[in-house]
Amino acid sequence: MDGKRRREPVSEATTHRLSLLLRCLRALEREEVGTVSSQEMARRFGLNSAQIRKDLAQFGEFGVRGVGYRVVDLKERLKHVLGVDRVRTLVIVGAGNLGQALADSRNFNCDGFRVAALFDVDGRKIGSRSRTGVPIRDAAEIASAVRELGAEIGILAVPAEGVASAASALAAGGLKAILNFAPAAAPSFPGVLVKNLDLTLFLESLAFQIGEAAP
Amino acid sequence: MDGKRRREPVSEATTHRLSLLLRCLRALEREEVGTVSSQEMARRFGLNSAQIRKDLAQFGEFGVRGVGYRVVDLKERLKHVLGVDRVRTLVIVGAGNLGQALADSRNFNCDGFRVAALFDVDGRKIGSRSRTGVPIRDAAEIASAVRELGAEIGILAVPAEGVASAASALAAGGLKAILNFAPAAAPSFPGVLVKNLDLTLFLESLAFQIGEAAP
Repeated sequence: MDGKRRREPVSEATTHRLSLLLRCLRALEREEVGTVSSQEMARRFGLNSAQIRKDLAQFGEFGVRGVGYRVVDLKERLKHVLGVDRVRTLVIVGAGNLGQALADSRNFNCDGFRVAALFDVDGRKIGSRSRTGVPIRDAAEIASAVRELGAEIGILAVPAEGVASAASALAAGGLKAILNFAPAAAPSFPGVLVKNLDLTLFLESLAFQIGEAAP
Repeated sequence: MDGKRRREPVSEATTHRLSLLLRCLRALEREEVGTVSSQEMARRFGLNSAQIRKDLAQFGEFGVRGVGYRVVDLKERLKHVLGVDRVRTLVIVGAGNLGQALADSRNFNCDGFRVAALFDVDGRKIGSRSRTGVPIRDAAEIASAVRELGAEIGILAVPAEGVASAASALAAGGLKAILNFAPAAAPSFPGVLVKNLDLTLFLESLAFQIGEAAP
């Protein structure tokens, strides 16, 4: 982290917009585009150009007036700002269908992230591997494996009743953040960020909104 | 929908809290608890009791002063409010690892939801079934199948480049809502609600926050 790293809290909405900009820049780089304006990025990704300039201005001076942004430079600086300029190691607790699908997913093994291990309590799964080769290890080893692998982010894909013990083991290993897909909120531990993405809640919320929108 | 159904927009945060209350009530029903106070529900699910009373008051008078809420009655009325008092049919576009995992998931086949079909463009998958038996059909049939099945919610588990055509076919079939897990925003169509749950954005947001929290 350098001195330009800001100190005030940044909202999830802002980091999502920065991630979208990074994705836009990666696409432009693949197309060998050299420079781009905030207007062009806004048009391409359905964003607001003033919002783009405001979001980027929070983190320093990136653009050149009349020229726009240099695609490669801005991409590298955004990766640094977002903390994805090095590969972060993930582990996934729960080697059921969802856990294994996430372990093998391009979303979770893209630029900046790598899934190093799955954990399960089922002895028939322990010792085997996911389709792409992620090893499935004994859930009893979570804390020591997190330390050994230097894992920073843990994904919970366990049943509701497994959330508390899995989160506790991840925290004991010194992990920094948990993304929880289980249908139960993960308990909080000092120094561990938790993001709950309870899929049933999103479905029920859509069901409710469908009802609201009906005549 | 009855006359008590409110007309002002309700936030996603509120519907998520109502879903959590419904989950709490289902647990209490399994334990054969007859009545419950807002304080007891708050303690059990780590919620705020005043918030519970406020959320429920939006939809009518549910509780009895000094007695609390009757568990079974409140559960049934909350299911009605949330629109999950009947089973809604889901379809999933993309029969890759994630799509099939979601099709087989308890989260997506619980009280109120049932996955009726998967769709894919891969001829080797079309005609087969997921582990739990959900049929995998040709993506060319999406619009007609949505009509035929009476599907209301579509899940997108396709690569970024498949989002626009899949969303368009779902909308053409008269579907009401889309939950999109792909790393690209789904386009909007009149009368179709879209919730984007781009997993990469959540990961990058956590990576950023880890950096922010570091010393």
